[in-house]
Amino acid sequence: MSLAMSREDLMEYLRQIFPQVHRDFVVEALDEESIVMRLVVEDRHLRPGGTVSGPSMFGLADVSVYAMILARKGRQSLAVTTNSSLDFLRKPEGGKDMIAKCRLLKLGRSLAVGDVLIYSEWSDKPAARATMTYSLPPEGSAAAAFG
Amino acid sequence: MSLAMSREDLMEYLRQIFPQVHRDFVVEALDEESIVMRLVVEDRHLRPGGTVSGPSMFGLADVSVYAMILARKGRQSLAVTTNSSLDFLRKPEGGKDMIAKCRLLKLGRSLAVGDVLIYSEWSDKPAARATMTYSLPPEGSAAAAFG
Amino acid sequence: MSLAMSREDLMEYLRQIFPQVHRDFVVEALDEESIVMRLVVEDRHLRPGGTVSGPSMFGLADVSVYAMILARKGRQSLAVTTNSSLDFLRKPEGGKDMIAKCRLLKLGRSLAVGDVLIYSEWSDKPAARATMTYSLPPEGSAAAAFG
Amino acid sequence: MSLAMSREDLMEYLRQIFPQVHRDFVVEALDEESIVMRLVVEDRHLRPGGTVSGPSMFGLADVSVYAMILARKGRQSLAVTTNSSLDFLRKPEGGKDMIAKCRLLKLGRSLAVGDVLIYSEWSDKPAARATMTYSLPPEGSAAAAFG
Repeated sequence: MSLAMSREDLMEYLRQIFPQVHRDFVVEALDEESIVMRLVVEDRHLRPGGTVSGPSMFGLADVSVYAMILARKGRQSLAVTTNSSLDFLRKPEGGKDMIAKCRLLKLGRSLAVGDVLIYSEWSDKPAARATMTYSLPPEGSAAAAFG
Repeated sequence: MSLAMSREDLMEYLRQIFPQVHRDFVVEALDEESIVMRLVVEDRHLRPGGTVSGPSMFGLADVSVYAMILARKGRQSLAVTTNSSLDFLRKPEGGKDMIAKCRLLKLGRSLAVGDVLIYSEWSDKPAARATMTYSLPPEGSAAAAFG
Repeated sequence: MSLAMSREDLMEYLRQIFPQVHRDFVVEALDEESIVMRLVVEDRHLRPGGTVSGPSMFGLADVSVYAMILARKGRQSLAVTTNSSLDFLRKPEGGKDMIAKCRLLKLGRSLAVGDVLIYSEWSDKPAARATMTYSLPPEGSAAAAFG
Repeated sequence: MSLAMSREDLMEYLRQIFPQVHRDFVVEALDEESIVMRLVVEDRHLRPGGTVSGPSMFGLADVSVYAMILARKGRQSLAVTTNSSLDFLRKPEGGKDMIAKCRLLKLGRSLAVGDVLIYSEWSDKPAARATMTYSLPPEGSAAAAFG
């Protein structure tokens, strides 16, 4: 088991494939089993009241698991989210970035599953928990990943 | 069982509380048990390849269930998403709005649960399915809703 | 789109493959898109207080979606549950069978997704809601279905 | 933060409230944040082919989180499962007990959320992952917990 991409490769690749949103996300740490991803919180991620929005936390969890799959399988790999579950546990703290800690629970031939805890920076109590399942297509077409 | 807000009241209220995103959403239909909500798809909702992004579909499901709760409980009601599950079933069609059809499965004293099917406009096969749970705080503070 | 198995074929086949539990389940109705399955509630399905247990409702949802896949794909088909989400909405009524109404939302090459509402018999308010995802292996080995 | 019940108290209490199934479950370890629970696998937990069934793993996850809540809140506490999500990752190994490792992610006034990884004994790769949400009723009635 080893990594197909380094942290630097991964950041460069995310920059290419997500030109609109790449500045939102920073890979803070990466090893064979886990990744730490930062969401650089800006106004567009907020709900009224200054809380980070649900869709922003969904996006952070989704990108974290996707990046972990890329890091293991390499940049040519296609993967499509097929399932997600999220629990919102505590109100995120205003004015702080969010940090996702993701473990890859399974990386099979056709399915990958990753588990994510999301924290307001410096907090030790999670604001949210997520699990994302990705379908990994056997052949080289994105449509194939939808199973 | 009756509605506390009409479709027009609801649209006006969403406009007030979600100033940044209210133009994304249109309440197409509303009755005691269900709501139909349109996501007006624009560039910022898209992933590379022209597909509507996961966070955008999450947001559509979330707003649909929230609006249904408001319609039943009235505008003073506070509600916080505590749990969501989504299944992504088919690739959304490029260049089309998305239509969410939401049923309220439960509206209890402290929890509400809604079920959502999301379609590309004019399609009869769902692109995604979602369930959202909201915590309804007994007292008048948003923080209370986090349980 | 048509059925590979009739209601009678399906009941006979469930009898063969689930010898321990086949008497728990009765296929009440079946068409191309949906199935109605009864759980014949007995003491072993109950929790203290006379409520039908969570594992029994999980099992009912799981069998319903599995039977729907069999009915469409035929008896040789292998399928393994990969994901489930359940919401428990209301306390089941004591001394009543439970009725699951299942729709197949997707039957793809490698994944199938079904949605289930579970009622106490004669009740019109659901006791639970479930979604189950099955992996459908390309080749003839059960292990393959785990992806 | 401290425990309201010791491991021995907890086992004795589970024996009282779950007379039918208490022998299935053994509390292997317990601290303020986590519990390890064993499912003593017998024939009735198996599917054809010798695999531990989905409902048995659901039950193990459910009991683990419930026991963790009891250990923290004490034996008078009422709690009702309102939501669960499970991912089945690998086929359980035949003839082995299953071990659930549960962390309590949140123990609020009205909701508790626990995360569970389930292993075949001695395996270091999880067979399943689960999250369970419990509603904690303010007053002393089980019905109240359904929110």
